[in-house]
Amino acid sequence: MSFAFLKGHGTHNDFVVLPDLDGSVHGDLSADLVRALCDRRGGLGADGVLRVLGSGERDGWFMDYRNADGSLSEMCGNGVRVFARYLQTAGLVDTSRTLPVSTRDGVKQVVYCTDGDISVDMGRPVLGSTTEVSSAGVQYAARTVHVGNPHAVVVVESLSSVGELRHAPELVTHDFPDGCNVEFVEVRGERDLGMRVYERGVGETASCGTGACAVAAALAARDSAEPPTTYEVEVPGGRLQVRLDGGGAAHLKGPAVLVAEGTWLE
Amino acid sequence: MSFAFLKGHGTHNDFVVLPDLDGSVHGDLSADLVRALCDRRGGLGADGVLRVLGSGERDGWFMDYRNADGSLSEMCGNGVRVFARYLQTAGLVDTSRTLPVSTRDGVKQVVYCTDGDISVDMGRPVLGSTTEVSSAGVQYAARTVHVGNPHAVVVVESLSSVGELRHAPELVTHDFPDGCNVEFVEVRGERDLGMRVYERGVGETASCGTGACAVAAALAARDSAEPPTTYEVEVPGGRLQVRLDGGGAAHLKGPAVLVAEGTWLE
Repeated sequence: MSFAFLKGHGTHNDFVVLPDLDGSVHGDLSADLVRALCDRRGGLGADGVLRVLGSGERDGWFMDYRNADGSLSEMCGNGVRVFARYLQTAGLVDTSRTLPVSTRDGVKQVVYCTDGDISVDMGRPVLGSTTEVSSAGVQYAARTVHVGNPHAVVVVESLSSVGELRHAPELVTHDFPDGCNVEFVEVRGERDLGMRVYERGVGETASCGTGACAVAAALAARDSAEPPTTYEVEVPGGRLQVRLDGGGAAHLKGPAVLVAEGTWLE
Repeated sequence: MSFAFLKGHGTHNDFVVLPDLDGSVHGDLSADLVRALCDRRGGLGADGVLRVLGSGERDGWFMDYRNADGSLSEMCGNGVRVFARYLQTAGLVDTSRTLPVSTRDGVKQVVYCTDGDISVDMGRPVLGSTTEVSSAGVQYAARTVHVGNPHAVVVVESLSSVGELRHAPELVTHDFPDGCNVEFVEVRGERDLGMRVYERGVGETASCGTGACAVAAALAARDSAEPPTTYEVEVPGGRLQVRLDGGGAAHLKGPAVLVAEGTWLE
């Protein structure tokens, strides 16, 4: 079976894009094919697959997102930005207007920014309780935040002091039976942050869109920052901006790049 | 700059193939571009780049092999097999004949096998001294073998007993200032081996063609096996065969697969 693909990334969170507008190419996209595409040595390699379904104006666009392990996923902040870059590059959208993209987590509003970045309204981060995180034998104070998925945000003096994140940091509380993503944040200036993230089930990654939003929300709460306010968040894979608007919604903005297009031969 | 590429692998040792027959596409292929292509998140991701130069009958084919870090490399046993698969798929060679491929380590003879595998004459492994290897606090007896590059072969009761190979095993002798690849081998039956490899400067990998040849040569010496003889070598990324011919040369045989072809857009 031969079909078209693209490969792209947002701050080095990388994806295989599968154009399949009328659903006729992939039908029920199998978990086996997703795993084969995402295999970093046997396939193209990616954190996930973004299947592009829909027809624009008439019934909108649907982002059928799959994790690299083949499982379904609701949403991905960097993924939806790469998804929008594909629609732009393919000439399928009017980039002067806000673009609604349907996901399993509802409709997301995407904006093509004048500086070339792509921004997405990630909704309102929900602040949770304070807790403690243990990593490599060190205890840290943390704040939990939900951005569709659970996060625990830890402010540290320096990111390097956290050491290698080979094992999942442990939460003292057990409110998250499926695990929790943990962000370590270094405050470099007013609204200027550095972040490392340990994604549950994955390990340390180059970037996490919901994690950047969680970090901005936690820091805004800590500093009683009045919205609207914008945080710069440098992740290992690049630079993101998170704007918290007057209604409390987080807008994730950053680069989205397509590096290759081609045909899968297997 | 936009150009054609293919992605393929031999037992999960993976490569970006760059067709550039007359050298006009890539000129002096830059280390920066090689690194960008091989970047597993920002690019296509690969262990190395196989640039295809030449014009077949007239002046042969040259495999311009680069490591993922951009450096030049002499030869790669799995790489030359993927290189040959590209020439076959592109219809550039007569697969009923032995194919000479020039490399920085001289001309290699490639055979398209009737079972679909591709085999390459890797030359004669040179047995070295016995030595000791230390890994994760355990001492092992080892035999050094040169197959273009240096190897130390360790026979173990079971591959799983070796544990995680997070750090480079250390050789007691210091004959290899640039480091040494270390293979752990489990004997599963007569001429039936399992192998794990720690490649110097890289870490544990899914496969190593020269390593499989080193292992076959070391085991043949240990068991006083009369050539010609063939070893099955299962690596984490698949299955290889190493035939030691009457002259002592090692022929590396196994699958070589192209999974995608496309255009680099950056």
